[in-house]
Amino acid sequence: MKALKGNAVFAQSGGPTTVINASICGALEEAIKSKAIGKLFGARNGILGVLTEELFDLRKERPEDLRKLKMAPSAALGSCRYKVKKDSDFERILDVFKAHDIRYFFYAGGNDSMDTADKVAKLAASRNYEMRVMGIPKTIDNDLAFTDHCPGFGSVAKYLATMIMEAGRDTDAMYTSDTATVVETMGRNAGWIAAATGVARRSEEDAPHLVYVPEIPLSLERLARDVREVHKRLGRCFVVVSEGCKDEKGNLLAETGGAFATDAFGHRQLGGIAEKLGDFIEKEVGIKCRRNKPGTIQRNGMHFASRTDVEEAYMCGKTAVRLSLEGTSGFMVTLVREKNKPYKCGTGLAKLSDVANGEKYLPRDFMNEEGNHISKKMREYVVPLMKGEAKFEMGDDGLPVYVRLKMVPVQKKCSEWKP
Amino acid sequence: MKALKGNAVFAQSGGPTTVINASICGALEEAIKSKAIGKLFGARNGILGVLTEELFDLRKERPEDLRKLKMAPSAALGSCRYKVKKDSDFERILDVFKAHDIRYFFYAGGNDSMDTADKVAKLAASRNYEMRVMGIPKTIDNDLAFTDHCPGFGSVAKYLATMIMEAGRDTDAMYTSDTATVVETMGRNAGWIAAATGVARRSEEDAPHLVYVPEIPLSLERLARDVREVHKRLGRCFVVVSEGCKDEKGNLLAETGGAFATDAFGHRQLGGIAEKLGDFIEKEVGIKCRRNKPGTIQRNGMHFASRTDVEEAYMCGKTAVRLSLEGTSGFMVTLVREKNKPYKCGTGLAKLSDVANGEKYLPRDFMNEEGNHISKKMREYVVPLMKGEAKFEMGDDGLPVYVRLKMVPVQKKCSEWKP
Repeated sequence: MKALKGNAVFAQSGGPTTVINASICGALEEAIKSKAIGKLFGARNGILGVLTEELFDLRKERPEDLRKLKMAPSAALGSCRYKVKKDSDFERILDVFKAHDIRYFFYAGGNDSMDTADKVAKLAASRNYEMRVMGIPKTIDNDLAFTDHCPGFGSVAKYLATMIMEAGRDTDAMYTSDTATVVETMGRNAGWIAAATGVARRSEEDAPHLVYVPEIPLSLERLARDVREVHKRLGRCFVVVSEGCKDEKGNLLAETGGAFATDAFGHRQLGGIAEKLGDFIEKEVGIKCRRNKPGTIQRNGMHFASRTDVEEAYMCGKTAVRLSLEGTSGFMVTLVREKNKPYKCGTGLAKLSDVANGEKYLPRDFMNEEGNHISKKMREYVVPLMKGEAKFEMGDDGLPVYVRLKMVPVQKKCSEWKP
Repeated sequence: MKALKGNAVFAQSGGPTTVINASICGALEEAIKSKAIGKLFGARNGILGVLTEELFDLRKERPEDLRKLKMAPSAALGSCRYKVKKDSDFERILDVFKAHDIRYFFYAGGNDSMDTADKVAKLAASRNYEMRVMGIPKTIDNDLAFTDHCPGFGSVAKYLATMIMEAGRDTDAMYTSDTATVVETMGRNAGWIAAATGVARRSEEDAPHLVYVPEIPLSLERLARDVREVHKRLGRCFVVVSEGCKDEKGNLLAETGGAFATDAFGHRQLGGIAEKLGDFIEKEVGIKCRRNKPGTIQRNGMHFASRTDVEEAYMCGKTAVRLSLEGTSGFMVTLVREKNKPYKCGTGLAKLSDVANGEKYLPRDFMNEEGNHISKKMREYVVPLMKGEAKFEMGDDGLPVYVRLKMVPVQKKCSEWKP
């Protein structure tokens, strides 16, 4: 197939990850090698930057800075949570692409982003505007369908499991006063992240002692019983709970309508699920409970990233660009586990529209029968993804050095966008 | 001086740190070399283990495990928050020491522990029971007087500043939806930890944009003004706040009695200061605010410890034992900064009673004039303490491996302790 000549735009969407910049790094390196692709644009804050025509010129970045993207956490191009819905917005995206002769669109994100990319691709085709659209998988939640796992997940798994291991030692030492600890992890619908921390328990003694995921309803009676049992056996209890855990009625435990929505007086309670379960354990079980909420810290831990994850993210970016140059369009690159022992992972393709509509939950048998810790299957699945340490630059102030792009703006050519 | 013959007990107290085991490692290595010291006892959970006579035999641990203590976070001997007050408790401690011919007592902890050690030393002297008592400094809070800094502080400073740097990049990328972030740090009375994160801001763009410490009262008007100013300038705002921050009246912001004690209906509000400031920023400034609370995670981050801190903690332990063998007693080992460029640190001594009664706050000129970020002085003080990476063992599951002691119990010789 004759190479399609034109410019390319790269964009990142949704919650940042430790390795989404590694994907863009891989994609850029491949694009720079090609003779077909002319200008390399970054879209500031994902699809929002296309809509507002806030593009910047990636050829004006220093080559070493683009290389350093591989080891920079979060989304260096900027990200967004904007969901494109209106037809006029899709038209606008195509207008901006046409104005800048953009023939390649590389979008790193989750299913919403794949949905956007898919619709843009279809609109372009219907208007006979030749272009190639490729998706690059990204989500710490690991909930994309059609891929064995998602870039970003291995690093949050490794870092968070390490946090739990380390904070677990704190509870081991302090149980005479701080007897229990609850850690809240990300994962609104799927329990992959919370479950990954289960790997930190190499022996009965080790944290976490209990792991709760959104896929398995959590009643407060059950929680109290579990905590009491662990406390009786070990004298302490370390609990990991996903922010998306639900009660038997399907209500989020941390939100209005859940079991904690109101106190005894009917007053609405505020705060995260760690705070709430902590309060409950103190009142119901009668032991003091620490609450940790790593929040956005967990998904940006480049200083302890999984090398496997960094390399796979980089490979996904490279593959997306390489295949698009060969004529592929309308697909997301997937990760295919070819072997588990020793672990070997390649890439595949999934239709953007399929990914857009899929969601992958933690299989029931990745958890133990009781539904309060992981099974051997989960361990075998996740351990290869957490392996390896990645080298990064350290400053003379004892802290890591992560690159910042200059983001030199590209002259606008379209009228102003009205949201 | 003739070496005093007898057994030794080692104990750890208060909140764990990344490097308190490194201190015990150094102390044990020195004690093992000595001919004067016979048995090596660990007291389970600090002074509580002496009171309950729960001692364990450190000579029964594998030598390689004792070496590995240098790179294990938290307090491997167990810790406690028990404050010895009653005369009968001090008598009991001496009884246990006598029963086991304990002539050396090494206590790693903060000012309360130094107070206990001091009183035990004085009681022993008054009863003509010859023994040597030495304190080993430990506290992430860095608030011990008579020492330039405390083992444990450098590592929490390095790790937390890195967390802030990394989570800061998340806010940089997501500002169009998650515009502000508040991170709560430890430090109930002193702002050293919160201030240390200020180093992560190498340029105006970098997090943290605002840093609040307990030493400088924080009014809500001030907070709102500061956040608005940063938001206007950068489009986002990243705030670090010490858990011990107080309002103009001296009330803890996160506790009953503080400005957030009750909502508009007079209902008591629950949760940490990050939750509360987050709520305030959302309501008052009108921008969405993320809340992170690393909690006990921050003080156990051996996977990203400061090598300087590890080595100094180890040196404090070694020095305490070496000096006690030479006849020193009733002192805590201190860290003395001999030079700053290049950094050079040695040890000194401070009387246990002096340390017990002192507390070291963040000097006003370690913060900027506005009191909302650090000054050059703070940076110069803290950077050398964060430098260097420490090597640790990695498992084949992609996670660190930290030693666990066997803790073989020693036969009890005293009657039961009644608290």
